[in-house]
Amino acid sequence: MTDDLLEESTFDIPPGFTQMNWVRGFGRQMGPLYEKIAENGEYVRAFYVAEHHTNGMGNAHGGMLMAFADVAFGHCVSIRCPDRYWVTVRLLTDFVSAARKGDWVEGTGEVVGAEDDLLSVRGRIWCGGRTIMTGTGVFKVLGERSRRK
Amino acid sequence: MTDDLLEESTFDIPPGFTQMNWVRGFGRQMGPLYEKIAENGEYVRAFYVAEHHTNGMGNAHGGMLMAFADVAFGHCVSIRCPDRYWVTVRLLTDFVSAARKGDWVEGTGEVVGAEDDLLSVRGRIWCGGRTIMTGTGVFKVLGERSRRK
Repeated sequence: MTDDLLEESTFDIPPGFTQMNWVRGFGRQMGPLYEKIAENGEYVRAFYVAEHHTNGMGNAHGGMLMAFADVAFGHCVSIRCPDRYWVTVRLLTDFVSAARKGDWVEGTGEVVGAEDDLLSVRGRIWCGGRTIMTGTGVFKVLGERSRRK
Repeated sequence: MTDDLLEESTFDIPPGFTQMNWVRGFGRQMGPLYEKIAENGEYVRAFYVAEHHTNGMGNAHGGMLMAFADVAFGHCVSIRCPDRYWVTVRLLTDFVSAARKGDWVEGTGEVVGAEDDLLSVRGRIWCGGRTIMTGTGVFKVLGERSRRK
């Protein structure tokens, strides 16, 4: 853990991003994640590819990119329905290029369709000018979220 | 970490499964994972849903299920091409039902098509008799894998 802390403390977080406060569960396990949210609701989530995100080739693991897609694309559901839980129903992820250890990877999503409690979302993950992943998802809005303490 | 160790040590691994020896990268981070491989190449990968795999509702996080799908479905590529690296090109995951904390979740995949260096795979994840996720993927076979030390 000492190595991890040293690694993170020497990394400069780009302006406007704050570290997400996920202290439990898989959100913490896949982190640290960062986000930047504009007043109009546009947002970017991000992570710095650390050793614990990599595959055997030293790139971001496909599973990590998919997990990041889930939280990066799906967040537009939380923006639209801030007081509701939601679940992922279907997610299609296309791997366009690799993210390497040390890369700062960003992603976002937007709602492109709504039918009852199902929202269709389109998302993209990139590193600088290079697209890492594109995808589409269907998310289902559930009941009211209990207030965070 | 003490809590994690206690949690894992009190869990009985089903007969035939061994813990995967992923000591680095995202494979370790998303673990512990288990696998059972038959002589004919049929295999099952599995994990026990621990706290660090969960979402805010106490179920397996969608991102964790997708990451598990990547390694559970994709392993049939390693079975078919044991000396080659591979990458995920596209993965479609359909979330059928939730896996809860404490559930033993299993998954496997099979090659259903091959075109040059691209393999099409169909996979399923389940918990007992209940399907958790179905999916299809396209995986690309790359160059020779360096021997594990």
